[in-house]
Amino acid sequence: MNSYKYPLKVRAVWWNSDKKELCWINTLKLPFTVETVCSNDIDRIVKAIVNMEIRGAPAIGVAAALAVAAHAHRISSLNIECFYDEIEKAISKLWRTRPTAYNLFWALSRLRNIIVKAKNNGLTQEEVVELIEREALNILNEDIEANIRIGEYGQELVPSNATILTHCNAGALATAGFGTALSIIRIAHYLGKNISVVATETRPVLQGARLTTWELWIEGIPVKLITDNMVGYIMRKRLVDLVVVGADRITRDGYVVNKIGTYMIALCAKRNNIPFYVAAPITTIDINSTINDIVIEERVEDEVKKISGYSITLDDIPALNYAFDITDPDLVTAIITDRGIVKPPFSENLVKIVDKRIN
Amino acid sequence: MNSYKYPLKVRAVWWNSDKKELCWINTLKLPFTVETVCSNDIDRIVKAIVNMEIRGAPAIGVAAALAVAAHAHRISSLNIECFYDEIEKAISKLWRTRPTAYNLFWALSRLRNIIVKAKNNGLTQEEVVELIEREALNILNEDIEANIRIGEYGQELVPSNATILTHCNAGALATAGFGTALSIIRIAHYLGKNISVVATETRPVLQGARLTTWELWIEGIPVKLITDNMVGYIMRKRLVDLVVVGADRITRDGYVVNKIGTYMIALCAKRNNIPFYVAAPITTIDINSTINDIVIEERVEDEVKKISGYSITLDDIPALNYAFDITDPDLVTAIITDRGIVKPPFSENLVKIVDKRIN
Repeated sequence: MNSYKYPLKVRAVWWNSDKKELCWINTLKLPFTVETVCSNDIDRIVKAIVNMEIRGAPAIGVAAALAVAAHAHRISSLNIECFYDEIEKAISKLWRTRPTAYNLFWALSRLRNIIVKAKNNGLTQEEVVELIEREALNILNEDIEANIRIGEYGQELVPSNATILTHCNAGALATAGFGTALSIIRIAHYLGKNISVVATETRPVLQGARLTTWELWIEGIPVKLITDNMVGYIMRKRLVDLVVVGADRITRDGYVVNKIGTYMIALCAKRNNIPFYVAAPITTIDINSTINDIVIEERVEDEVKKISGYSITLDDIPALNYAFDITDPDLVTAIITDRGIVKPPFSENLVKIVDKRIN
Repeated sequence: MNSYKYPLKVRAVWWNSDKKELCWINTLKLPFTVETVCSNDIDRIVKAIVNMEIRGAPAIGVAAALAVAAHAHRISSLNIECFYDEIEKAISKLWRTRPTAYNLFWALSRLRNIIVKAKNNGLTQEEVVELIEREALNILNEDIEANIRIGEYGQELVPSNATILTHCNAGALATAGFGTALSIIRIAHYLGKNISVVATETRPVLQGARLTTWELWIEGIPVKLITDNMVGYIMRKRLVDLVVVGADRITRDGYVVNKIGTYMIALCAKRNNIPFYVAAPITTIDINSTINDIVIEERVEDEVKKISGYSITLDDIPALNYAFDITDPDLVTAIITDRGIVKPPFSENLVKIVDKRIN
């Protein structure tokens, strides 16, 4: 945990290389209880992703990859075809956990590619298991490195003494480490820029109130909590200098799919001439799909109707629970990636930055 | 309760004419407990307004007026000068309860005018008490009648089968009866227009989740609950046809001061070409002040940091708690008053409609 350029104080998902297990912090219990869970049971991990113990697009991708590795280690030796079959079943289960975040599909596709190659090369089960573990750990480590680069590229957009508004949790708890939006904030803090943060509580699951404030508190970065509906007024009062949020998926033409509420924040920022930045690794950019292909996850009504088990409305009242929304490209000032800052026109510039990887 | 054109199913504040007391529903306990409190103790009533047992601009105005009447009845006979002094002390206490809603100041000023006249005419204490009670009851009854007119004037803006989004509670529980925004919704329902409602939960105090859904449930009007940050996405999906909200104060030039979050809803409505209507009686229009005179109330941090006593963040994290925000006139499609519908330019048309009263 000490081999990085900056201190890695919070981790949400990691690999227990002795026990060949995925470990995670159950983010549902934060900030009052820091509960670590370790498992190599694919159904337990699927449940952890579905019920949001593990959440945040990059963290979900990393966890899914490590889950496949953990599962691969568990399969007792049998016919290699059956082994591949078991692995594919695990990948399919993970594939269906959450529909919106792109990193999940990106990570699982990457493992599938490895497996196809292994099959073609006639590797033994032991060799394939090792390959899968190595690839999953690459995904984890690349995510951490990408986040550090996002944090460093972002610095040119963060002036000293800035107050930065962020939504939900695009932090260490949403990634393999450091975070996306919070990596920019962390590194600004480490550089002594004297920044402070305004965190939206982020109903219904309260990731801002529970997770972002906790991460920043651990770092000693000043943070104030607001309800989601206060963003407009505090922007109007000029209490915010810039916005940085994460993303669950960015389309080829620059539509940003992120936690519900992001679109309204972007509208307020535009109206008040406050820069609105999106921080995300290249792996969040879905270069093949347009806005019409995006599935916005609808979650259970009780997340809206209850807060920590306490009902806020009558049982008879139905609720809507869209987990994400869509922010139009014209509301986004720039997208900060691990390859550099992408400015409009996004429909041209996003393809260029993603293609860099291939060349 | 049966002398009105429409059924008065919910009342938030009323007068017990036998005991000469103000009665109210403690809205903090809704929707799970319907607790009625009656009192003629000015300090108890002040507390009820400050802690939001009684809330909503018109209800606060009515309650304050009835509180003065209740207090006047309690003052044991003494020197008439001392009596006036006692009354003025009560008015001053009530004046300081909440800084933003205009109706409070309007109602108390109206009683002061009555008292000045009474003084000039040398009335007896008994006569003054009766005058105050009568004027307070006028304020109550006029509010109910104004709300019915708002509801009726609003109908030309509500098409059949419309889905109407409303924020906070501008209902019977915010007024002497029927509500402002909810009067329009109620009457549309009574007219068989087959409307349905989307209610924002309205953090931090959850008036939407607790009060608006309860009122509509009693009326049998279909309502769905959303978090405040879902407004943008559901407008984008065209799940809403129009917005109607209340107001705590409307300036001469059409700035609308209303529950925190209103401004963001108005921005989303504008972006998505959805009409944004404000429903308020003439008594909410503050013809003398401009936007620079408005005091936006800041309330205790714990309203944000706790939900029904349950902490959602660490004790160490500070919170901001602005109770209201300001919506610019260019975001408002029309203001529905008890004198008719006011359209832009508001800086001309609001003065005209208020002047009607004087002439």
